[in-house]
Amino acid sequence: MTAGHPGKVVALAGGVGGARLVDGLVRLLPPEALRIIVNTGDDFEHWGLRICPDLDTIMYTLAELAPEERGWGIDGDTFHVLEEAARRGAPTWFRLGDRDLVTHLTRTAALARGETLTRVTATLCESLGVHFRLLPMGDEPRPTTIVTRRGDELPFQEWLVKERASAEVSTVRHGGSGRPTAEVLDALGGAGLVLICPSNPYVSIDPILTMPGVREALTQTKTVAVSPIVGRTAVKGPLATMISQLSVEEPSARAVAGHYEGLLDGYAVHPGDAFDAPFPILETNILIQARKDRVVFAGELLEFARSLG
Amino acid sequence: MTAGHPGKVVALAGGVGGARLVDGLVRLLPPEALRIIVNTGDDFEHWGLRICPDLDTIMYTLAELAPEERGWGIDGDTFHVLEEAARRGAPTWFRLGDRDLVTHLTRTAALARGETLTRVTATLCESLGVHFRLLPMGDEPRPTTIVTRRGDELPFQEWLVKERASAEVSTVRHGGSGRPTAEVLDALGGAGLVLICPSNPYVSIDPILTMPGVREALTQTKTVAVSPIVGRTAVKGPLATMISQLSVEEPSARAVAGHYEGLLDGYAVHPGDAFDAPFPILETNILIQARKDRVVFAGELLEFARSLG
Repeated sequence: MTAGHPGKVVALAGGVGGARLVDGLVRLLPPEALRIIVNTGDDFEHWGLRICPDLDTIMYTLAELAPEERGWGIDGDTFHVLEEAARRGAPTWFRLGDRDLVTHLTRTAALARGETLTRVTATLCESLGVHFRLLPMGDEPRPTTIVTRRGDELPFQEWLVKERASAEVSTVRHGGSGRPTAEVLDALGGAGLVLICPSNPYVSIDPILTMPGVREALTQTKTVAVSPIVGRTAVKGPLATMISQLSVEEPSARAVAGHYEGLLDGYAVHPGDAFDAPFPILETNILIQARKDRVVFAGELLEFARSLG
Repeated sequence: MTAGHPGKVVALAGGVGGARLVDGLVRLLPPEALRIIVNTGDDFEHWGLRICPDLDTIMYTLAELAPEERGWGIDGDTFHVLEEAARRGAPTWFRLGDRDLVTHLTRTAALARGETLTRVTATLCESLGVHFRLLPMGDEPRPTTIVTRRGDELPFQEWLVKERASAEVSTVRHGGSGRPTAEVLDALGGAGLVLICPSNPYVSIDPILTMPGVREALTQTKTVAVSPIVGRTAVKGPLATMISQLSVEEPSARAVAGHYEGLLDGYAVHPGDAFDAPFPILETNILIQARKDRVVFAGELLEFARSLG
């Protein structure tokens, strides 16, 4: 349903998939018309530094620093600090690049001084020439924990990166107070359109959706999602396997729509993935790894959303 | 005066001068016979990291990582993190190298976990293959402040590095509780010989000497100092100028001995710098920039100290 300002768009985003859609949107919308609410459930401490993988992926993408194909990190970054850490026996399963480190150092120092994550994110974006507002979903930690079939509880990045998503998932838990920031609630309250990016619903979107007030805001605003699945395969990451493990369905665009039941006013899927649904479906190329495809798809998506009235 | 174990040596050390003498001593003494008490008055926070310049200079020297001529930092270190920090407008007056950063990251994370500086220093030394005990003079911060003639109060590294020691010094202040660690008091209590390294007496040695119990321990132990002055010139750093500003004397080996009045049982000076003194003087080459000269001088110094009975 539509409320808020029709021209204002809010994107709910996780990592690489979210970054790619947002990268298209920023070429079509002025900074004041777009707010990007970013998952912080992946955030963790490493080497004593606060790492925010999803915020950084989107920030580096908008700063045109992220490698087009891989999607995360800084293109051409070096690893001299990491190599020295390895020589000294420090943990190196999370590969922090030399240029990337400046982000984590800046953020950690600012948080230690009492700045909010929202504030230091704005500072970091500014220092990289990114003029769009990236809003961490909350200022307090809300760590995602993967509970495995064996009963282990793994912080998300350890499960994903260190264990290469090998352990079967039994449940996904969202920790912390779960309080969204005032900026997040303001953005949602003032939005004419909410876009759910093609991110992993369990670990990128659910951490945002399960915060008090967010789901309610979406039911009062036109909401359109983009499928993170093409055919039976996730565009990126371990999502297809997670759907098999966490739901009774086979991985599909439809399964993800089912996960968002009651929220969607429209849905974008890849050609061949359309299905009978109580809302309109946009069937078009949603593979937007290449930079040139991102703006084309973002344009189609905004046009589709406008057509929903 | 002599007490403690005659075979046990304690060195009081600051930065590069201290590192060079200690580098000679470690080739002549087994690890159990040497304790190195290190000034932490230079320590400061930069980029949210705890930097301990004197501990690191000695550690890198003993690990054979420090460049022989410059004396501090890691030989051949790169500056990719610093270059990125500069691009983003972060302060870069203190040049942190990429490999060097691992030290500060490890230390900062350990301190945040509640480890003592003494403990994490041991861990850092071990990770670099340094088997001698480097003892920070205290576990609590004891920051040195330079009070200038103009009345400004500058943290030591800002005065030395950022302002290039340009402001005239009116007073040197030692902050913090000034409590030495138990390890420092044990080392002093068990020493047969205390060596005051050729370090700056005002900013490298005084921070140690002015801690409760240290001066008393030295008056009960054979104590030998090495002059940091040759002729009228400091071997390194701003010491000569500081002597002119802080004392009524001209810079000289004798002026430094006067600063240690009541503590010395012997003194090593460069040829031509001997003077009438109430204790024996060793007159020999004290210029030990080159690695090969360090062990020669350390041998002469230990022999001289033994001869003092």
